[in-house]
Amino acid sequence: MNPAAVAELVASVRPVDTAWESVARARLDSLTKPVGSLGRLEDLAARVAVVQRTARPTLLHRDIVLMAGDHGVTARGVSPFPREVTAQMVANFLAGGAAINQLARHAGAGLNLVDIGVDADLPAHPQLIHAKIARGTADLSTGPAMTPEQAAEALLTGARVARGLASDGATIIGTGEMGIGNTTAAAALTAALTGAAPEDVVGRGTGLDDAGMERKRAVVAESLRVNAAATTDPFDALAAFGGLEIAGLAGVVIGAATAGVCVVADGFISGAAALAAIRIAPDAAGFLFASHRSAEPGHTVVLEALGLTPVLDLDMRLGEGTGAAIAIEIIDAACTCMSGMATFAEAGVSGNDQP
Amino acid sequence: MNPAAVAELVASVRPVDTAWESVARARLDSLTKPVGSLGRLEDLAARVAVVQRTARPTLLHRDIVLMAGDHGVTARGVSPFPREVTAQMVANFLAGGAAINQLARHAGAGLNLVDIGVDADLPAHPQLIHAKIARGTADLSTGPAMTPEQAAEALLTGARVARGLASDGATIIGTGEMGIGNTTAAAALTAALTGAAPEDVVGRGTGLDDAGMERKRAVVAESLRVNAAATTDPFDALAAFGGLEIAGLAGVVIGAATAGVCVVADGFISGAAALAAIRIAPDAAGFLFASHRSAEPGHTVVLEALGLTPVLDLDMRLGEGTGAAIAIEIIDAACTCMSGMATFAEAGVSGNDQP
Repeated sequence: MNPAAVAELVASVRPVDTAWESVARARLDSLTKPVGSLGRLEDLAARVAVVQRTARPTLLHRDIVLMAGDHGVTARGVSPFPREVTAQMVANFLAGGAAINQLARHAGAGLNLVDIGVDADLPAHPQLIHAKIARGTADLSTGPAMTPEQAAEALLTGARVARGLASDGATIIGTGEMGIGNTTAAAALTAALTGAAPEDVVGRGTGLDDAGMERKRAVVAESLRVNAAATTDPFDALAAFGGLEIAGLAGVVIGAATAGVCVVADGFISGAAALAAIRIAPDAAGFLFASHRSAEPGHTVVLEALGLTPVLDLDMRLGEGTGAAIAIEIIDAACTCMSGMATFAEAGVSGNDQP
Repeated sequence: MNPAAVAELVASVRPVDTAWESVARARLDSLTKPVGSLGRLEDLAARVAVVQRTARPTLLHRDIVLMAGDHGVTARGVSPFPREVTAQMVANFLAGGAAINQLARHAGAGLNLVDIGVDADLPAHPQLIHAKIARGTADLSTGPAMTPEQAAEALLTGARVARGLASDGATIIGTGEMGIGNTTAAAALTAALTGAAPEDVVGRGTGLDDAGMERKRAVVAESLRVNAAATTDPFDALAAFGGLEIAGLAGVVIGAATAGVCVVADGFISGAAALAAIRIAPDAAGFLFASHRSAEPGHTVVLEALGLTPVLDLDMRLGEGTGAAIAIEIIDAACTCMSGMATFAEAGVSGNDQP
C-alpha cells in the first residue's frame, strides 16, 4: 500500500491530452515526404508533441538521472563483480571515464548522479546529489529488500530530482542506474509485477557463468516465495524486490510525469523501475519512452508489460543510462524533423497523384 | 565491362588492415564496462578503428552526399508522385525544408547536393554541385537505362565528390538520393545483382496502390528480360538498371574507400548502389556501413547480399540520406565511447571476479 506522501504524488499525475495526437499527425502528413515515410521517427515525434501540446515539439534541454545503490543480495554470489564496484564506478562517473559520460555529452544531456544507497561514504562533488537512504538494501532472498518507508523515501527522492530538473528547464529525462547485483533485483521485481517465471527474467547480467546463472535463478525464486505477500500490490513489490536506485527511478518516472516532461527508460533495470512506476501511477504511461531492447531476457518481458516498442536494438546491456542517452538523440532528431521541415504547400512541391 | 577509368579507380582501392581488429578489441575489453556490454556499439567502433588504423577512432567531420536524378521509367506509372517532384525536392533541399536538412544538421554533417541527372535546369547555388550527365535515364524496361559511358561518368563523378570531401577532412560520408521512380531502378538492379525475383524486391516506394505495385513488378520483370545480357557483370548491370544517382552513389562508396574513409549507405536505393559498388570493387566492403533497414522489402535482399546488419530499424522509407544521418550519430557515439572511456586500470575499478 502506498504511504500517504506517495499517494499524494500519484494523485498529482495528469494524463497526456490525446486530442493532440490528431494535430500532430495532421502536421506530419503535410510535410514534404511521402505520408508515414519517416516511420517510427513520426511516432516518436507525435508522442512528444502530445506531451508538449504542440505541433512543433522541441527537446532543447535534456538530462540523465543516474542513481546508484547497493544490494544485500550480492552476498549470494549473483554477480561476477564485487560489490565495491558500485562505489568505484560512481567515482568513475565523477571523473568522466564511464560510457555514460561520453554518451550523455554526445547527446547534449546533463548527467545527474544520485547516491541513493551506495555502501560507501562518497565525497562531496558538485555533480553528485547526496541522498543516501541506506548503505544498500537487505537481501531480498530472505525478506523485503526495503521497508515501505525506505521505498517511499527513495521514490519521493526520485520524483523530487525529476521535478527539480524539469523546473530548471529539462524537457526530457533519461534514467540510468549503477548497482552491483541489480539485475537480480530487477528480475525479481519483473517476475513479481508480471507473473513471469524466474527463468524468463534472469540473464547473465554483467557476465555470469552457467553456475552463477543457476544460483541467480534460485535466488530469484526464493525471493518470490519469501515475499509472496508483496506481489499483489506494485508499491509493496517495489519495496520487497527493488533496489533503492530502482525505487528512485520509479520516482523519476512519476515525477517527470507530474512535471509534464518526457522520460526515457534505459534498459532492463530502469525498465523494471518504469514498470513499477506505471503500475503505481498508470497515468504516467503517456510520458514514458523505451530507449532500447537490452540483451537481458527479462527486458523483453518488461517491454511487453509496458506495451512499448524500444527505439533501438543494439544488443547493449550496460545500464548507466547509455541506451537512454542514444535514444534521446534519436527522439530529438525526430522532433527536429517534425518542427523544422517545410510542408508541401510551403515548399511548392507537388503531392501524391493518387487520391 | 568496366571502362578503363573505372578499372583504374577500382584498382586503387586498398582493403582495410584487419590486423587492427585485435588492437581495437583489446582496448574495448579494457574499458570500464563488462566485456561486450556496449553490444553493437562496440562492433561499430571497432570497424571505424580498423578503417582509421587506431585504437581511438574519431569522426570529427561528417558529410552527406545526396545525388538527384530522373528516370525514364516514370513514363510507365511506377510512382504516385509526378516526375517534376525530383527537381522540386532539390529546391526544397536548397531551401532547407526537407527531412535530410534537419537530420544532417542534427548529425553535424555537411549536406552536399549533386545534380547528376535531374530533368530540369537547376539554378546556381553554393550548396549544389552541377554535374548533370543527362536529363534523366532512358526507360530501363525497353533497354539499358544508361550507356556504359554515362554510367562510368556518373560513377567517376561520385568518386570525385567523395575524394574531394575526404581531402577536405571528411571522416565519414553518408549516401542519399532523390529521384522519382528510383525504387523501380533499385529493385531491378538488386534483382540483377542477386538473382532475386521481382516480387521479392518490389515495394510500394513512396506509396503505390495495389494496381501500381502490379505495374511496377511487371516493369521490373520486363527490364530483366530486355537487359538479360547485362546481368552477368556488375558494371553492366549498374548501367542497364541503375539511375544516374545510383551509379553516382556507387562511385561515392568506391571513392570513399580509395580515400580511406568510412561510408554509410542509407536505405534501399543507396543500398543497391553500395551493392553494385562492392561487386565492382570488393575491397571497398571494409569501409561500408549499413545505416538502417528500410521498410522497402528489397532492402533486406540488399543487406543480405552485403552481409551487413544495419544500425537501426525504424521502418523508415524516405531516402535522401535520412537513415544514414541518424546512423552516423550512433557510429560517432560509439567512437566517442571507445576513445573517451577510462580503462579499469586508469579508473581503479575492480574487474570481474571470474577467471
